[in-house]
Parts: sequence; C-alpha cells; structure tokens
Amino acid sequence: MTKFNIQKPHQKNISQFQHIINTKTKPLGSLGMLEKIGLQLCMIQNSAKPTIINPQIFVFAADHGIAAEGVSPYPQEVTAQMVYNFMAGGAAINVFCNQNSINLTIIDAGVKHLDISKIPNNGHFISSSQGLGTENFLLKPAMSKTQFDNCIAIGAEIIQKNYTHTNSNVVGFGEMGIGNTSAAAMIMHYITKNKLELCIGRGTGLDNDGLSKKQSILLDAKLNFENNYPTVSPFYYFSGYEMAMICGGMLQAAHNKQTILVDGFIATAAFLMAHTTYPEIIEYAIFCHQSNENGHKLMLKYLKVEPILQLDMRLGEGTGCAMALPIVAASANFIANMASFEQAKVDNIH
Amino acid sequence: MTKFNIQKPHQKNISQFQHIINTKTKPLGSLGMLEKIGLQLCMIQNSAKPTIINPQIFVFAADHGIAAEGVSPYPQEVTAQMVYNFMAGGAAINVFCNQNSINLTIIDAGVKHLDISKIPNNGHFISSSQGLGTENFLLKPAMSKTQFDNCIAIGAEIIQKNYTHTNSNVVGFGEMGIGNTSAAAMIMHYITKNKLELCIGRGTGLDNDGLSKKQSILLDAKLNFENNYPTVSPFYYFSGYEMAMICGGMLQAAHNKQTILVDGFIATAAFLMAHTTYPEIIEYAIFCHQSNENGHKLMLKYLKVEPILQLDMRLGEGTGCAMALPIVAASANFIANMASFEQAKVDNIH
Repeated sequence: MTKFNIQKPHQKNISQFQHIINTKTKPLGSLGMLEKIGLQLCMIQNSAKPTIINPQIFVFAADHGIAAEGVSPYPQEVTAQMVYNFMAGGAAINVFCNQNSINLTIIDAGVKHLDISKIPNNGHFISSSQGLGTENFLLKPAMSKTQFDNCIAIGAEIIQKNYTHTNSNVVGFGEMGIGNTSAAAMIMHYITKNKLELCIGRGTGLDNDGLSKKQSILLDAKLNFENNYPTVSPFYYFSGYEMAMICGGMLQAAHNKQTILVDGFIATAAFLMAHTTYPEIIEYAIFCHQSNENGHKLMLKYLKVEPILQLDMRLGEGTGCAMALPIVAASANFIANMASFEQAKVDNIH
Repeated sequence: MTKFNIQKPHQKNISQFQHIINTKTKPLGSLGMLEKIGLQLCMIQNSAKPTIINPQIFVFAADHGIAAEGVSPYPQEVTAQMVYNFMAGGAAINVFCNQNSINLTIIDAGVKHLDISKIPNNGHFISSSQGLGTENFLLKPAMSKTQFDNCIAIGAEIIQKNYTHTNSNVVGFGEMGIGNTSAAAMIMHYITKNKLELCIGRGTGLDNDGLSKKQSILLDAKLNFENNYPTVSPFYYFSGYEMAMICGGMLQAAHNKQTILVDGFIATAAFLMAHTTYPEIIEYAIFCHQSNENGHKLMLKYLKVEPILQLDMRLGEGTGCAMALPIVAASANFIANMASFEQAKVDNIH
C-alpha cells in the first residue's frame, strides 16, 4: 500500500498561538469552537496568521454490489443520475459550493450505469473507474486487496495533483453511491467495535420494514464474512471504491499538511480506515457536521471529536463540508484580522 | 408606543412551497434544518425562489447604570472602547461581516464614555444616544416610559431608513454594553417566569465569586422593584437603551416582512419584549446561535425554537447572526437553484 508521512504538527509555538487568540478584543474563550478550530489551523499551518487558500471539495461516486439486496429505497441507477446532476450543477453540493466559492470536482470511482459521453469536459470531472460497482458483499469480498490498494493510490494521486495545481490548503471529501451506508456501517462495526445494529441506520430514508431488512442482510453478511473469509480484511471485503479513494485522498491531504474537512457517515467511515493506520491524521481533520444517520454520532464519539454543525442533514455529497467552510474560514480570519486589546486600546482584565 | 402591523405570512402557498422542497434532487427531508428555514423564507417572501438581499447587521451599544455595582469583570469604559474598535474594523463582528458580505452599522444608543469626535464619518455609525447610560436599576428605574418608547421609535426608524435605502430583506441585531447580561436576565425573568437564578449567567466571564455577587445584586434589585415600584413595567425598569432600540428595530423589520436574525442572550431578551406585544413576530425570526450564557437555552425553550448553531460562543455583537447567515443563504439558495427530480431526470421514490 502507498506510504504516507503524516506527522503531528510541531507543538513548539502552541502557547504563542494561544496567547494571540487570548489577547484578541473579546472576553477570554468567548468565540468557543472557533477558537479551538483556529488554534488547530495555526498548528497545521505553523502560522499565527492562518489562511484558507482555494478550498476544494471532491465528491467520489461509486456503486455497491450490496445494493442488489434492496438495502436502499433508491434504484442503483440513481448513482449515475446524480453524477450527471452534479456535472449539470443541479445538486445540493453544487449550490453550496457556488455560494461559498469552493471548487468542486466529481470523481467516477466505479459507477455502474455511467455513460461518460454524457459528461461535459469542463475540468470538474475525473474518470478513475475501478469497475461497474463492487461485488455484493453478502456473498463475497466487495473488492480485492489489489483493487483496494489501487483506490488508495488513486485517491492520493488526485489530491496530490490538485494540490500541485491549486496550492489549496483545505480539502473536503464527499461521496455518492446507492448502498454505501451499508458498506460504511460494516466498516464502522469492525473499527469501532460497536454492535452492528448500532451502526445501521435509515440511509436515504428507509421505513421500519426497510430498516429491519437492511439489518438482517448486514447481519448475514457479517456471519458469512466471519465464517468463510477469516483472513480477509474487512476494509476490502466491505468498503466501496469511493470510500477507499477518499481514505487515500485524506491520507495524502494530511501528508501535505492540508486541513481535511470530514463530512458525514460515509466520509467518516473512510476517515476511520485512514485513522487505523495513521492515527496522527486526526490532527489535520475538522469534523464538519453530525449526520442524522444513526451511527455517525458513535463514530464521532469513538474519535473523541466534536462536530461543528448539527443541522439534521443526512445527504452526503460533501454538503456538511460546504456548510461548515464559512465557520472554518471565520476561525482563521478572527486570528488573522481581529485587533488585540493593546492594538485597539481596549481594557483587558486578564 | 409606536404601532406596528405584524401579520402572520399568508398560508395559502405553503403546500406548493413544501412540494418544491420535496422534489429537489435529494432524499426527502435530508437537508434537515435548511428545509425548515427555507420554507420559512418562502413563506415570509411569499416566493418559491427566496433570496437574500443586502444582509445587514446593526450593533446597538449602550451603558447600564447597574455596571456600577460590579456585575461585570470589565470596566464600563470598555463599551466606548469597543465602539471605537467596531469603527476601526478590529472586532470579531467586523471580521465576520467582511467575510460574509454583511453591511455593518453601529449605533450609539447611550454609551457613557464615548467621544463622538473620535468616530470616523464613514456611513457605518448612527448617533442616537438617549443618555450617558441608564440609571442603576438596583436603586431606581433604568429609564422612564418616555425614554423606552423613544428607543422603540428610534430603533424602528433606523431599520426603516435602512430598508428604504438598501431594500435589504435580512436584518441581524447585535449589541454591546457592559452590564447588559444583568439587564437581559431581569427581562427574561419577568417574561419567561423562570426562577431568577436560572436567568443569571457568567456574562463576559465571571468567576464563581463574581457570579454569586451578581446573583445577590440582581435579587436585591428584584425585591426593590417589586416592593417599591408596583406600577412600573419591568421593560423600562430594567432594560437598556440598546435593548429597547433592538426591540423597536425587530418590530419594524417584521412589519416590513424582513427576516430577522436573532443573536444571543441580550438580543433574544429584546426579542422577548417584542414578542409579548406582537407574538406573530416569531414567524419572521431565525434564531442563529445558542449562546453559552446560562439563560439563553431557556429563552429558546420558552419560545419553542431551535437555534441553527451551537458553537459555544458568548460574545454578542451579532456574531451569531454573522456566523449563521451562510446557512440561511444556503436555505434560500437550494430552493432557488437545485434541480428537481424531473428536471435532472433522477428517479424519485416518493
């Protein structure tokens, strides 16, 4: 597998950065979470004037063999249809990226029904398909170890090329893939050790019967995996091409000392995979939004992190990253641009 | 007192607006709070393409006689010093308004130590001082009924003039005033009927001793008011010039069918005063941020509303409004700009 060099940021300037935050013209600690994020940005950038440069969101799309079992109320064709919608500018993530001046790139990581000839060549699409969806993990591994490793390398390469071209220092990761909350639930189960039923949620909107069916299918998949594939990693048994590429992309971003914006349930599952091998990646990650999907809260608890937003969203596509970016930017901007008590001649009590 | 005509928005198009939201290319309800805010904007604007036009934040500053009792760790001079800081662009609200393209106006509603000759004449300052701070409400009414009514009229006039000039349809209200969490706690107590100690918090950062002292002073003020001023309204016995002007400004904004962004503890206390006489104002209000100040959560509970953000901030100045604006804008933009299932040819299951 691709190797990454991910180091905890230098700690030597932390008290200087904290002092700068503490002497801005506001009561001590009164900007709450913005002060924590701001300090994190100072540490990552090793700068007392953190900046947000050319923010990027990458939406990786792929299909999942498990969709054949009916784990989602939507047909698998919707993955490709949503890719067309992204490329036509009609999806939620397009609207939010336009609003907040975020550059959006869509990656075909392995969408089944995609007709590439329908995709406009506008520089916002990358074709990196690893196949027409994964295999059905109820029956067999979703992908091979080689495919998984290729996805890690490709995700990393996409981020690296973009970094070289844009010098961006903030990168968000989103996804699209009918069935991928099932894949993410399995990954979560094996990493966080939460009971499987706590990892399974309603996804795009299953009713009670649909949820019961999804739970039963994923329990069967777990038993088959544990009984018949004892030497296979759950990472490539269960995950999707988009999840593995996000994992590789996040690792490369941390390697580059870029700030990583982590979206919802599926993106956090990809982050969990990255985190198992490179725990220092957490220093580069900002958790943007706590999804309404059942297991996400437990993922964040496992990682001991606080999300910026709780807007009851459960859409994916990187929408949580796009919504959180202005708050991340504000966390940099107050440090770079607010006056200190001394500069503004305001009485300080500390 | 100034009369306002505040009507609940027409309900006749609500199912049309909800249908438009439901048929955007996303799982039903998956944008969570953005869908609720978006529907509210459609209703206020009576439009299926809601917009955000020239967003404004007004920061009303004034001093409070109660500050003489030591209810804040900061000296009263800080109110004026922060007004200079606002006008020099060095405060948190300046940074956040710049970032999010919000026009900022500072109002001297009655700051004690302000030297107007030091204020640059750049169109972002309004001089409407009602005096050098209110009276000390431990001993007597903070202001007269006439002063309170004047503040309502002046706040309304400021919003009306701005509305005429800018055609803005979103208006946020912030404040600055050493001691004003004490005034807001008293107003909250008399409107929400919560026990006084639940209404009192640490403000800009009191320690335990400071908090005990504040509680004891405000309890004495309550007893003196109830025993000796049985015919006086708590609104003008306890509130501040800035709070009364915000109350008037919010009422005018609702009268104009502008969307009101409500900030933290003090701004919500002003909203509570407006709400007692004109309960329909709630239809025009978006609650931006739940402050870390003790009583704010109970104020929001009393109003039965959910805040957009919980960022552990407790700064005032309208900073919660500025942080929430991009999410309010996204709530309008997804309705105006996302494709429907039909437009994007994406399969819908509903």
